[in-house]
Amino acid sequence: MSKNSTQQTIDEQLLYLSKGTAEVISNRELRIKLKKSERTGQPLTLKVGFDPTAPDLHLGHTVLLRKMKHFQNLGHKVIFLIGDFTGLIGDPTGRNKTRPPLSRQEIEANAETYKTQVFKILDPEKTVVDFNSRWLSNFSSQEWIRLAARYTLARMLERDDFSRRMANQKPISIHELLYPLAQAYDSVFLKADIELGGTDQKFNLLVGRNIQREYGMEPQVLLTTPILEGLDGTEKMSKSLDNYVGIAESPINMYGKIMSISDDLMWRYYELLTDYTMAQIQHFQHKIKIDKLHPMDAKHMLASHIVSDFHSDTAAKEACKHFSEVVQQQKFPDEIPEYPLKSSGSPHRLVDILLRASFVASKAQAKRLIRQGGITVNREKVEDPALTLDPKQDQSFVIKVGKRKFGRFIFQD
Amino acid sequence: MSKNSTQQTIDEQLLYLSKGTAEVISNRELRIKLKKSERTGQPLTLKVGFDPTAPDLHLGHTVLLRKMKHFQNLGHKVIFLIGDFTGLIGDPTGRNKTRPPLSRQEIEANAETYKTQVFKILDPEKTVVDFNSRWLSNFSSQEWIRLAARYTLARMLERDDFSRRMANQKPISIHELLYPLAQAYDSVFLKADIELGGTDQKFNLLVGRNIQREYGMEPQVLLTTPILEGLDGTEKMSKSLDNYVGIAESPINMYGKIMSISDDLMWRYYELLTDYTMAQIQHFQHKIKIDKLHPMDAKHMLASHIVSDFHSDTAAKEACKHFSEVVQQQKFPDEIPEYPLKSSGSPHRLVDILLRASFVASKAQAKRLIRQGGITVNREKVEDPALTLDPKQDQSFVIKVGKRKFGRFIFQD
Repeated sequence: MSKNSTQQTIDEQLLYLSKGTAEVISNRELRIKLKKSERTGQPLTLKVGFDPTAPDLHLGHTVLLRKMKHFQNLGHKVIFLIGDFTGLIGDPTGRNKTRPPLSRQEIEANAETYKTQVFKILDPEKTVVDFNSRWLSNFSSQEWIRLAARYTLARMLERDDFSRRMANQKPISIHELLYPLAQAYDSVFLKADIELGGTDQKFNLLVGRNIQREYGMEPQVLLTTPILEGLDGTEKMSKSLDNYVGIAESPINMYGKIMSISDDLMWRYYELLTDYTMAQIQHFQHKIKIDKLHPMDAKHMLASHIVSDFHSDTAAKEACKHFSEVVQQQKFPDEIPEYPLKSSGSPHRLVDILLRASFVASKAQAKRLIRQGGITVNREKVEDPALTLDPKQDQSFVIKVGKRKFGRFIFQD
Repeated sequence: MSKNSTQQTIDEQLLYLSKGTAEVISNRELRIKLKKSERTGQPLTLKVGFDPTAPDLHLGHTVLLRKMKHFQNLGHKVIFLIGDFTGLIGDPTGRNKTRPPLSRQEIEANAETYKTQVFKILDPEKTVVDFNSRWLSNFSSQEWIRLAARYTLARMLERDDFSRRMANQKPISIHELLYPLAQAYDSVFLKADIELGGTDQKFNLLVGRNIQREYGMEPQVLLTTPILEGLDGTEKMSKSLDNYVGIAESPINMYGKIMSISDDLMWRYYELLTDYTMAQIQHFQHKIKIDKLHPMDAKHMLASHIVSDFHSDTAAKEACKHFSEVVQQQKFPDEIPEYPLKSSGSPHRLVDILLRASFVASKAQAKRLIRQGGITVNREKVEDPALTLDPKQDQSFVIKVGKRKFGRFIFQD
């Protein structure tokens, strides 16, 4: 990752920057901007907006961050823009109690949380963290009217979200029409050459392009990155769907989760979550085809690569060892956590024990896992959902749930 | 016009205030406000918005002003609000060269022009002239967003003008959606109890009512006044249609124009342009029915009344005398303006003379008037459109065009 614009041709730069993007509007304009930057020695200004609420990033977010890093690697200036203007207002209708305005302190604290996470990928030296409240809070009435005059309602209603709500007669408040304009004005204020965002941000990014033109500026180039699929390979990666890998997760969890994905998804992750070039990735695929590489080994490489990115090479090696021993070879780990159980002298139902230890979310889940053969007690698969464990029979039991949950349950008086 | 709330019952006040209105929303609420005002001794605050561009008022505008005066007569406070916030911005798109921003001086000058005209009707002592730029210019971003959050797009698009443009795919700029909200906020800021406007303002007035409610205030009562028909009795009175009576016109013009209206329109003008009660007006109508009053005399009363309002009783009497002598009795006026004609020794065509003196707009119009019998030369009706006037025959001619245009044309060497 020490490439820079002086070492790569414009064509190489374009190939490097467009890897893993969903859309570039337009390639022609990007080429012109890159050439101009090379000629003048002036780095391009890249703007990327982020939510002001407390961030808890997962691999899905890193697709965008990685693309930002690629621009940094070529020597360009990246503005990590926290859209706190809306956050400072909160829910302006006052009807949504979950959206009170954030204080300046809260926003600063969230920004710090962002930094500790995103600087695992981005270069702190080449990243400017800014806040759009800096200009939008002091925007005058005159400026608001002038900005709003630059866009027609018809164009605004082309946004999927708006047109869908109009069609379904769901209310749109007038202030919602102002937010895309405010975001677009950020590009004017920052003189952005390029704006990056997920494909779901395309509309807003286009508004920025048009508004820049209205203010007499050269319109920004848009680069959108795809929305990453979660571990299931179909749904968007998200915390609420529990198909995610958090970037602060332990090496062992991260490694295990990545090893669980399908072979198809593996290539998608190679493209979006590593810096391998498309040529390198195609080379791996070719090696598998001619039996020079086993898909499982390719997946180990991917998992090691990602764990290294967010932890270290050592952590990746340990996670690999743990996975191979415990999961693949069905061995028990070196250390099994211990759970004391209050012995009342009479037998305990297994499902109750699992629920109390939070190994399962419900008795129903415990029973389902038993039926699927996913639970062992002292290495023996449990088949009876009504199984009880008797302190008179044995003082302790090792229970294993799924592939990675272990516990030694010890009866105590 | 010296009635006040202590001398009239609430029912009498309601009757007085609702005379000549198109709609009151709602009568029930107006009654409550009037009662409360009577009980507490606190006058009601009435808000009426006016355009900041240079005013040149005609009788159509006085319908609203007269209704304002009625509230003043009952002791209430009238705010003559000049909507200069928009004027200070001009055309925010910068595409319309005819709408550059007005300077503070221009707006003040326009306000003075307004005052000299409207104080012919309104009581200067009971009128507060205010400017909405006073609060809207300093409106913060936060306040704009909060205001815009209070109204949905769907409700805004109920406005005739907007829905028509949406249907016809004519553009609506986002800032246009902000103006009705800004106007509505005026009612919040001024704590308006009542807002008055023409029927074409109903939508904006209703937005004011809703926005006041959103800001936790008792919503204003709306009173709309009808759009006055012009002298033709069908189109809206307007300068561009040339069917108007300007309030600065001379007594003679004003009188003559009013005498030219139909009997039906006369009663409409009685209702909207005088302070006669509906009972009085019905009494006049009854007298005509039983042949105790001639419609022409009723029209003279109306014309005298209106001229008195904007000039004086003496001026009204003189205008009446002039009309009776010159127009009705076909007499020539005491003074006939003189027009010199360059004599070339040969005859001049009448239509050329009329066009050069601007008595007609075109030769075609001159010929049409001749065909209709509307032109006389030396008291004789002209029948030949090709008529020529010969300096050898007579040194001067008195030409009359229509009912009120006279000229003595004198051949000179």
